[in-house]
Amino acid sequence: MIYLDHSATSPLLPEVKSAMIDAMNMELGNTSSLHSTGTRARDLLESARKKVACLINADPSEIIFTSGGSESNNTVMHIFAGQPIAVSAIEHPSVLEPALEYASRLTKIPVDENGRIKTELFPTESRLVSVMLANNELGTLEPIATDDKYKFHTDATQALGKIPIDVKALGVDYLTASAHKIGGPVGVGLLYVKKGAPFRPLILGGAQEHHRRAGTTPLVNILGFAAAAEYAEKHKTWELYEKNIRPLKNALAKRILKEIPHSSLNSPLENSLPNILNVSFAAAEGESIQLYLDTMGGIEVSTGSACASSDAKPSHVLMATKNDVEVAHSSIRFSFGLDAKEDDIDKIMKILPNIIKRLQGISTIKIKE
Amino acid sequence: MIYLDHSATSPLLPEVKSAMIDAMNMELGNTSSLHSTGTRARDLLESARKKVACLINADPSEIIFTSGGSESNNTVMHIFAGQPIAVSAIEHPSVLEPALEYASRLTKIPVDENGRIKTELFPTESRLVSVMLANNELGTLEPIATDDKYKFHTDATQALGKIPIDVKALGVDYLTASAHKIGGPVGVGLLYVKKGAPFRPLILGGAQEHHRRAGTTPLVNILGFAAAAEYAEKHKTWELYEKNIRPLKNALAKRILKEIPHSSLNSPLENSLPNILNVSFAAAEGESIQLYLDTMGGIEVSTGSACASSDAKPSHVLMATKNDVEVAHSSIRFSFGLDAKEDDIDKIMKILPNIIKRLQGISTIKIKE
Repeated sequence: MIYLDHSATSPLLPEVKSAMIDAMNMELGNTSSLHSTGTRARDLLESARKKVACLINADPSEIIFTSGGSESNNTVMHIFAGQPIAVSAIEHPSVLEPALEYASRLTKIPVDENGRIKTELFPTESRLVSVMLANNELGTLEPIATDDKYKFHTDATQALGKIPIDVKALGVDYLTASAHKIGGPVGVGLLYVKKGAPFRPLILGGAQEHHRRAGTTPLVNILGFAAAAEYAEKHKTWELYEKNIRPLKNALAKRILKEIPHSSLNSPLENSLPNILNVSFAAAEGESIQLYLDTMGGIEVSTGSACASSDAKPSHVLMATKNDVEVAHSSIRFSFGLDAKEDDIDKIMKILPNIIKRLQGISTIKIKE
Repeated sequence: MIYLDHSATSPLLPEVKSAMIDAMNMELGNTSSLHSTGTRARDLLESARKKVACLINADPSEIIFTSGGSESNNTVMHIFAGQPIAVSAIEHPSVLEPALEYASRLTKIPVDENGRIKTELFPTESRLVSVMLANNELGTLEPIATDDKYKFHTDATQALGKIPIDVKALGVDYLTASAHKIGGPVGVGLLYVKKGAPFRPLILGGAQEHHRRAGTTPLVNILGFAAAAEYAEKHKTWELYEKNIRPLKNALAKRILKEIPHSSLNSPLENSLPNILNVSFAAAEGESIQLYLDTMGGIEVSTGSACASSDAKPSHVLMATKNDVEVAHSSIRFSFGLDAKEDDIDKIMKILPNIIKRLQGISTIKIKE
């Protein structure tokens, strides 16, 4: 099996597994309890918070542990309920949908054909601007344009571990990240809230996380997240991606364009994540390509993002960038992990051209030349 | 060590640990992904949903997995935003606080000195009534008074596994439960939503849980929850608690009243959970008692609920039942697990009378005779 869907979820790192199993074998109480097992749990929690904070150069007190990226994104939009909000047109649905729910007026900032926002179109009357650090479907890196006129949130779920992230250098007020995209467990994420930035909890009714997020603290998951953060920090995974994975992405892009007729890139190769490549094949449906790659070659990719997989609607990201339903329906996303090898590219290119040829052959769609 | 704080969190069952470790060692993808590892994950998710549904006699489609009891409670209150809501005065803060936030008018249903709600005071003009199945600080069981005039929610976080629960027999529209109170992992809970009951997600932006809760599905935790549910179902833990644990609770209550001057019970012994005993000792501070029991005897108990431990405020539950700040500040809660033994009671009673005597001796509070 060749798993190329790391942007959907990345397998647990062995270091994470062992940290979690160790934690599961300890007598850990509720981190809110005053007795010894509670105190032990609380100490571990705070040491995990430091490790995670370190990865993005935040102060530990600025980190709120959440149940994941979606909750973090929802929390930020909820803070600005009743106020004007601006978001990029290609945000993750967990930004777009709550923004639509809570904003008094929602402005969608348009993007160019690479998915890069047009900063000159920033609506400066917004109280909150939310632009992701890297897009989940394309890998496009976005410019972070902070300003005294508004607060800035960035969803760094896909960027974490793939590029260096320093909240102080970025100057953002809020940042979302998730453990399971860097080899940590599913079900835990973080929300960075800059000291002094407005805050209001989404989940009420508990003193946990300094009254910022109610609910018994999921320590085993948090310790797993910390182990993944420590791994990323120690190995400078962003350098490994840059050095080892970007060449594979570029090689695959080049071979697809050369060897497969009517193929086109949706991902930019410049200013993009090193591990995401999104491509379209005229008159070949993404879901069928995905299925053939899986069943014929054990190659696992996705069509757009996993979060929207069960929807039949064309990707809002590809509609915003290419504005072409056919391009959107014929796309697949390769997202590499650090274990990807040159040989994987060969294996893909051994079967992909035939799959596309076959699908194009049976399609009723006329290919524009 | 004698851990008597199971209502705060219960240690992972060996069966849960091994189910989680097995899951961590499998190649499980994102449950939303279409490829083979995604499909495998989805199948496991649905089999877990069946097991958890079975424990409360729900249809699997009526179960939404959440990050825990607090999120489930918040979700229900959020559904009724802008409408009149009634809750018992002794609900968990994760019901009380969002109810206060969202209700157009909030009615608190008073309770008697045992913490039992006065059903004759039900405000039938409310659209939602939320009354917990068992109180977390006292163990008091509450009557479930459903009516066509309003929807009914019950927080069964403490009751699950301790008494039999059948949502159909109860007739409730919503029910909250959490894995970690029955030996499952922290960070996963459920919300039962009766077929046809109004619903609106709290966390938006994903197709997961049939568009009812966005966020990548935390499958390892959910499989842990399912293993805990299966354990409870298989061993009928509510029968074991009734048979083995209630006698210990009653014995401890009897000995405390007999052997410790100026002691009083806050928990009722009838119509109550078999495993929670809350007691007060005049002129002895709960926190000090807790600390001495821990350091002198390795006996871990809590003062009120863990969720509010870091607050210095007197328990709202004890204020609602006893309306006496001194009683509230002098209380401790014993909450037993299935591993509790008669010998534990002897060990408690070997040191507790001396602890109370010492604290009463140094107190400046004059004991009322």
